[in-house]
Formats: sequence, structure tokens, C-alpha cells
Amino acid sequence: MQTIDHLLSLVQNEFEKQKFNSDPIELYDPIDYTMSQGGKRIRPVLCLMGCNLFDGDLESALYPAMGIEIFHNFTLLHDDIMDNAPIRRGKETVYKKWNSNIAILSGDTMYALAYKYLIRTKSPRLSEIIEVITQTAIEICEGQQYDMNFETMEQVSIDDYLNMIRLKTAVLLGASLKIGAIIANASNEEADLMYKFGENVGMAFQLKDDLLDLYSDESKFGKKTGGDIIANKKTFLYLKAIEQADETNANKLKTLFSTLDIDNDIKVNTVKEIFNQFDVKKLTEEKMEAFYQVALGNLNQIDLSLEKKDALKKVAEILMSRDH
Amino acid sequence: MQTIDHLLSLVQNEFEKQKFNSDPIELYDPIDYTMSQGGKRIRPVLCLMGCNLFDGDLESALYPAMGIEIFHNFTLLHDDIMDNAPIRRGKETVYKKWNSNIAILSGDTMYALAYKYLIRTKSPRLSEIIEVITQTAIEICEGQQYDMNFETMEQVSIDDYLNMIRLKTAVLLGASLKIGAIIANASNEEADLMYKFGENVGMAFQLKDDLLDLYSDESKFGKKTGGDIIANKKTFLYLKAIEQADETNANKLKTLFSTLDIDNDIKVNTVKEIFNQFDVKKLTEEKMEAFYQVALGNLNQIDLSLEKKDALKKVAEILMSRDH
Repeated sequence: MQTIDHLLSLVQNEFEKQKFNSDPIELYDPIDYTMSQGGKRIRPVLCLMGCNLFDGDLESALYPAMGIEIFHNFTLLHDDIMDNAPIRRGKETVYKKWNSNIAILSGDTMYALAYKYLIRTKSPRLSEIIEVITQTAIEICEGQQYDMNFETMEQVSIDDYLNMIRLKTAVLLGASLKIGAIIANASNEEADLMYKFGENVGMAFQLKDDLLDLYSDESKFGKKTGGDIIANKKTFLYLKAIEQADETNANKLKTLFSTLDIDNDIKVNTVKEIFNQFDVKKLTEEKMEAFYQVALGNLNQIDLSLEKKDALKKVAEILMSRDH
Repeated sequence: MQTIDHLLSLVQNEFEKQKFNSDPIELYDPIDYTMSQGGKRIRPVLCLMGCNLFDGDLESALYPAMGIEIFHNFTLLHDDIMDNAPIRRGKETVYKKWNSNIAILSGDTMYALAYKYLIRTKSPRLSEIIEVITQTAIEICEGQQYDMNFETMEQVSIDDYLNMIRLKTAVLLGASLKIGAIIANASNEEADLMYKFGENVGMAFQLKDDLLDLYSDESKFGKKTGGDIIANKKTFLYLKAIEQADETNANKLKTLFSTLDIDNDIKVNTVKEIFNQFDVKKLTEEKMEAFYQVALGNLNQIDLSLEKKDALKKVAEILMSRDH
């Protein structure tokens, strides 16, 4: 097995070699800007890892891995328009730095570029690969739509929320591992189990995101905590608190989450106190752990050496224990 | 050879069977709205025709043909946001009827659906098909960007304009024919010649569009003529007029095309008079004819029966002689 650092360096080195700055520059400059910012490259590393676990040719997975990363960044470009998000990775978002039209069109181009990279695999199982990324793309759009719907819905169930983050975030982690496994010519069953493993880890990964937004160390997190509360986002934390709280506190939360006209610090502190009173942090960590246990169950069904399983577990644990 | 009407009915019947209205409805309703509006279905008919010319299995080309039409409609959805276009095919555009975010996300979903339909072919040459549509998608984005750039550029050459319409419009007609030919297992050379034929017909097709905007019979055109002039669009007609006109008239045109503060009827009539004075209509028709002759040259290099070539010429002539 290759180390995570090695797989990451393969991706990074190849991205550094790529030039995205062709003509018209108005279209490609934002793509170059986006792709040169880095980010954690989680999805391409998972893709290479999926390939490596089944002794596949990493060369044949490298461009697909990059295609997945370009695809992921396309979704961020469009999400940032829809969410009016001015900052990502500490820099201005494309729609803010340029404008919405540029972000729409550069995003569309990136989605096409993603396929261009994906088809550079030498795998004879291209149709499966295209099917996985395409189905995943559709689901991510559905997830983003549900996320937007939830903003104006009064009642969102925990199940609805979990389905939304599954679509919006988890499926792409599953797809990354599965595509890598397909390129290594794993069996359909193995590839599907890799997908399930990635999807369940992805659920825990997103719940960690919800936790970090409130409970992280700001110096490591890189921005102020409590952003989700200020924006009235119905995250797992909020929905769990509503479920657990008595009527008085539940109503208090609902009132706090239906206004933007309140001092941010007071709002965050008041909400956090209610969350703490009902053990929301612990309950979220337990839910994460539950997803991780399901993921391990998926992994155990795959016929891989202990060493390989440990390597994959290590990645999952990094994703779930990150502090930013 | 199947008739055009038969090929069109295959596409229409299958689209009528498709339901695009799944959950979340906020995402899929605009897709259903768009795809049920009809339109001329030019591109899927070209795809089926490309397949039929080389005696391919039409069944295997039907879903890819529909995928191309879904893809085309995705580009329209996003273009309409960028161009602030309120009406298409006599109905409100998606961004106008719903909002920009819905049009962005439904459009993204349609692009993914396009691939979902394309991979339903039974052709073993899927990687080529994906490559053609993907490269075409990138070029269409480039074309749209050039088109937007030209709005604020003072000087646009005729060559720049022709390259823009090639990217924005012509390549997809070429790609439609080529994908059909690939599905019928035509040789690479034949498939490329079909592409060139479609591309050159596409050039004439777009020049016809420029002409129709000013010189069509309003009762057939379905809207008022002169829209491009009112919007200061630097079409082939305008650029040709600038090229042909004396300095006084060229300056007059430039002045007229740099303002929106003038009575529309007066503006259209004044511009049209200058266009007529310098034979712009005839010169544009000659340019169309020149592209068509190149297209016929491409066609002549393909080893097909006269009957088949005539069928294809007939489609091209319909595209170029349309009155709306």
C-alpha cells in the first residue's frame, strides 16, 4: 500500500503541471484560480486509494481522480452563487471576485473538464465509471436543492436532513472510492461495498462539519465558530436539540432560528447553552460513531488484507477527527 | 433511409413517455417544463440520421439522441440567465418563471441527465461518444464566453464572429451527426466528415438566424424583427456592413450600436437602410452558400449512396431555408 502522503503528492504534482489558462481567459482564469487554490484533495486521494487497495494501476486512476476533484470544485462554484457565499478557503469565491455569469459558465466548463479527465483512464470499464459520476452528479444537485428547500421549511426531520447530507456530500466520497476500485477491476460487489463504506464515512464526515462549525478551536478552524447558527442553518445539531429539548427550549430555539435581527454573539452563546444542556455534542458524536461502525461493517465484507483495511480506516479516521 | 418525419416522431414519442418530474419537485419541475415544450428537435434528428445513414441500429441511437437534446436545453437554460432572456419558444424562461438559482441547478442536473441518456447506447464505442459530447460542451462554453465578451468589445472581426458561432452553435450540429455515425460504427474518417458537414451546415444555420432576426416575415417568425439591432448585437450582418460601408455610414452604425436610448423602430429602420444600401442580406446569403458548398465537399468525400446523400442534403436545406 502507498501512503496517503504519497497518493496526495501524486495528485498535487499533476495538478501543478496542468494549465487551465487557455482562451478565452475570462472563462479559464476562474478555473485556474479555483484549481490552484488546493483544498484537501480528499476525493482524488480516496479514488487513488480505492484503486491501490485492489492493486490497480495508479497511473490509470490519476486523471479520473483529478476529474473527480475538478467535478467537486464545479459544484462548489455553483453552490457559492446559490448560497451567496463570499469566501471559500480564505479567498473570494469566483462569483464574488468576478460575477455570477462567470461562475455559472466556468462551472459548466469544469463539469465538462471533469469528464474529459475521467475518460483518460485506460480502464475498459469506462461506462461504469461514467455512470457512477453521472448518477452522483444528479444526486448532488438533488441534495443541494433539498438544502435550499430546508432554509424556508419550518419542519425538517432528522431523516430528511440525513438524506440531504447523504446526497449533497456523502455520495461523492463513496463514488470516489468506487471509481478507484472499478479502475483496479474490483468485482461489482467489492466496488459497491467500497461505495457504501465511503458513503457512511461521508455521513460521519459531514456531521463532523456540523460539529466543527460550533465546537472547534477557532485558531485551527480558521474562522469564527457559530456561522451555522448565525445563518439559521438547520444542521444535525439544531434538529437533535429540537428533538431532545422540552417545549420551552425547543420554542426558544425555533424563535432564535427564525430571525437575523439579534446580536450574533448573544445568539450563538444562547443556542450553544441549550445545545449543551441537551448533550447535543455527545449525541452527534454518537451518530458519527454509528455511521462509522456501519462503514466498518461494509469494509469487513470485502476480502482485503488487514494491512489494507487498516490503511483505509486510517483515512476515514483522519476525515472524522480533523479539526478544520 | 427513414424519413425525417419518422426520425422526429421516434424522438417525440420517446420524450412523451419520459417523466422528468421526480423529487425534489423544485429541481425537476423546471426540467419537465423545459423538455415538454418541444422545440424543433434538430439535434436528435441529426443524431438519428447520422446513425441511419450508416445503417446503424436506431434503437441504440435513440437515447443518445435524446441526451443531446437534453444537453442542448441545458445550455439554453444557463444562457438565458446570462443573457437576461425572459422568453424562449413563446414561454417564460426558467430563470424568469422561477429564479436564477433554480435555473442554475436544474441546468446542471440536465447536463448530468444528458450523460445518463448518452450512456444508454449499446455501442462499444462509448468513450468516443463521451469524448465528442464533452469536447463539444467545452467549446460551447467558450463560444458563449466569446459572445458575452463581444458585447463590450468595440472591435470584433468577422473571423472572430465566425469562430464564436462555430463554437456556440455549429459544433453541436456536427457532434450530433458524428455521434450517430459512431453508434452505427462508421469509420473514424467518415464520422469526422459527418462532423465537418454538420459544422459547416451549422455555420450557415446560424447565419440564417442572423438574417431571420431582421428579414423574416413577422407572422411566421413569431416575434418582432430587429431584436438583434435593438440589443446592439454585433451579428454577421452588422460586421459585414461595417466592413462594406464608407466611413460616414460605418460611424453612423457604430453610434447607433452603442446606445439603447433611441426609439426602437427608428433605430431598426435606420440600420436596415444602411444594411440594404451595402447589400448585407445578399452578402450574408453568399456566405451561407459558401459554407454549404464546403459542407457538400465534406459529404462528397463520404462513401454513401446518392439516395442517402440526398436525404442529408434535404435536412441541411430545411435548416437553411427555414422561415422561423
